[in-house]
Amino acid sequence: MLGNFTYHNPTKLYFGEGALQNLAEELKNYQTVQLIYGGGSVKKNGIYDSVMKILKDSGKTVVEDGGVMPNPTTDKLNEGVEIARKHNVDLLLAVGGGSVCDYAKAVSVSVFCEEDPWEKYYIRFEEPTCKIVPVGCVLTMVGTGSEMNAGAVITNHAQKLKIGHVFGSKVMPKFTVLDPTFTYTVPKRQMVAGIYDAFNHICEQYFSGTDDNVSDYLSEALMKSLIVNSRAALKDPQNYQARSNIMWAATWALNTLIAQGKDTDWEVHMLGQAVGAYTDATHGMTLSAVSLPYYKHILPYGLQKFKRFAIEVWGVTPAGTDEEIALKGLKALEDWMGELGVAKNLTELGVTEDMIEGIADATLVMDGGYKVLSRPEIVSILKESL
Amino acid sequence: MLGNFTYHNPTKLYFGEGALQNLAEELKNYQTVQLIYGGGSVKKNGIYDSVMKILKDSGKTVVEDGGVMPNPTTDKLNEGVEIARKHNVDLLLAVGGGSVCDYAKAVSVSVFCEEDPWEKYYIRFEEPTCKIVPVGCVLTMVGTGSEMNAGAVITNHAQKLKIGHVFGSKVMPKFTVLDPTFTYTVPKRQMVAGIYDAFNHICEQYFSGTDDNVSDYLSEALMKSLIVNSRAALKDPQNYQARSNIMWAATWALNTLIAQGKDTDWEVHMLGQAVGAYTDATHGMTLSAVSLPYYKHILPYGLQKFKRFAIEVWGVTPAGTDEEIALKGLKALEDWMGELGVAKNLTELGVTEDMIEGIADATLVMDGGYKVLSRPEIVSILKESL
Repeated sequence: MLGNFTYHNPTKLYFGEGALQNLAEELKNYQTVQLIYGGGSVKKNGIYDSVMKILKDSGKTVVEDGGVMPNPTTDKLNEGVEIARKHNVDLLLAVGGGSVCDYAKAVSVSVFCEEDPWEKYYIRFEEPTCKIVPVGCVLTMVGTGSEMNAGAVITNHAQKLKIGHVFGSKVMPKFTVLDPTFTYTVPKRQMVAGIYDAFNHICEQYFSGTDDNVSDYLSEALMKSLIVNSRAALKDPQNYQARSNIMWAATWALNTLIAQGKDTDWEVHMLGQAVGAYTDATHGMTLSAVSLPYYKHILPYGLQKFKRFAIEVWGVTPAGTDEEIALKGLKALEDWMGELGVAKNLTELGVTEDMIEGIADATLVMDGGYKVLSRPEIVSILKESL
Repeated sequence: MLGNFTYHNPTKLYFGEGALQNLAEELKNYQTVQLIYGGGSVKKNGIYDSVMKILKDSGKTVVEDGGVMPNPTTDKLNEGVEIARKHNVDLLLAVGGGSVCDYAKAVSVSVFCEEDPWEKYYIRFEEPTCKIVPVGCVLTMVGTGSEMNAGAVITNHAQKLKIGHVFGSKVMPKFTVLDPTFTYTVPKRQMVAGIYDAFNHICEQYFSGTDDNVSDYLSEALMKSLIVNSRAALKDPQNYQARSNIMWAATWALNTLIAQGKDTDWEVHMLGQAVGAYTDATHGMTLSAVSLPYYKHILPYGLQKFKRFAIEVWGVTPAGTDEEIALKGLKALEDWMGELGVAKNLTELGVTEDMIEGIADATLVMDGGYKVLSRPEIVSILKESL
């Protein structure tokens, strides 16, 4: 822990099967609730009905805001802000996965914002100066960590940009309901994309920094738990122990804890988000498609950490040169990605060679990792990912 | 994660060298501050002066409440409550180690309590129903985790009882300043006692439960970090990296995270606290003195976890019977305790054979670990610890 930092994460988490029953208690502070959800899967699996029953039994006024897309857009954001303003809502209740939670947080800082939220928060990266509408979450899909952080990724189709803003702790959800059984009905492709997303969040924070840090050990712990439990969940998606451990590990993978006191990278996410802006592909899949070419590229600049990753996370025997050991770690990662069945390249996500320059244009260059990428390096990694 | 739980830890942490400068910002919400500290070491090392300067520069009214002893007593608690009532303080600012923080929290729930706090909170284990005075901490000694939890241990000399009550999240400090350089002047004996205390907090939460849990991996991570960094700190107490990692690991060892979704034990603490009530010995030393006899006693009931502890935490080669591997883990723990120089037995803490029955009387029996101890087992473990 060589850097100074402030840690503050006040989100209250209700965890476990049946945890939705705590929603009634949380609703006591609010009267008009904007009920935010995605494409309608919550209506099929009954979660919408369960939430609505609690809202109605608690005597709340409910304003519907469905149809949040996997990569929430500026157009949708503006729509949500209009709903919140029109009905003067005092709680934004997100029922869904990371996109629904992200969208709720973006709405929360925009309702009372007198400027264009996209320009203020995503182009100029300013902090909210206006009143923030409280957010609560009922998580139905695991991976993004959005349920216990202040991040919100928004896509601007006109500008072909997908940008995340990590706000301060005031934007974190006031409460989140985490019921692992709510994730049982998530299709396998979404489940594994979420698991890889969570794993990559840890990688982004692990492959960076110089000192031997508490966060390194915690990161390895979360990675090992994700690996063990993903295998159990692949075998039996209704394995409560596996799904609950995955849910909990994913929350702690991106709630600011393991980033404290160290640099972090996030270049895989920058590459993935640029791909997302061009293809609308599932977020976790865009990360898996570019990960291995990226890590192989930066391995020489962070050799000792990649060696540690191989030994501590994957149990590689520490024999051979540092580079051989480190590469065995990446091979183990590749094998696990194969087990999961996540996207192995950009071609299967619909990326073609003529898009590469545009995606490279849309890729933000981060400076917290082992190597600050040049434009030719970005193009080269994207081409290797095809 | 098989159990249901609520996780909520709103304490704001300011971490790093110079982090005290954030105190001024936090003070904005308060006017009359009860400045709580211990035996006076904060006056010698200059931390008292630094805090007082910020309080005065911020125009606060300061009410002094020094002399908090290592095991805060009911008499002292009543004294602190009187001070708070008389001056109508609106912030309790603890500057010191775990005892000072614990005491501040005990005062915080007692100022507006209309009953006897000892009877209500420590004998009947009731929750506060009155207004709670906010607590802030400036930590100067590492180990107890009191800076980010709602626990408060109080000793009643008349009744020869030392009891801890873990309150709800409303009793957690509003903010804590964690400056690793503030721990440089702590005597070596206190430093190692604190390190062992933190390590044992993890053991209490690790040696329990039945499923393969995220918390197990996180616990191993924190233990490994404590071991590595304790060795570096023994070599050079002013190694910032080591002291900061120890400080951060100790905070996360007991801020409720690694206890979530599983049973926990706490029997070593119950034995140690009973010893503390009889001898006034340093808390961490009472734990180290009874740990090995206790763990050897319960090993057969939690063999697989002790085996995992040996392999994952101490790097024991997994060869031989499960019991042989598990015992090698305890041997490694014993060796590390020798490196630290913590108390190896109760005799060196002033315990004599004639005290054993009384200490056994004062030992609470917990039911979350691998074995619920009978009275003869408690006596036997205490005798082996002499």
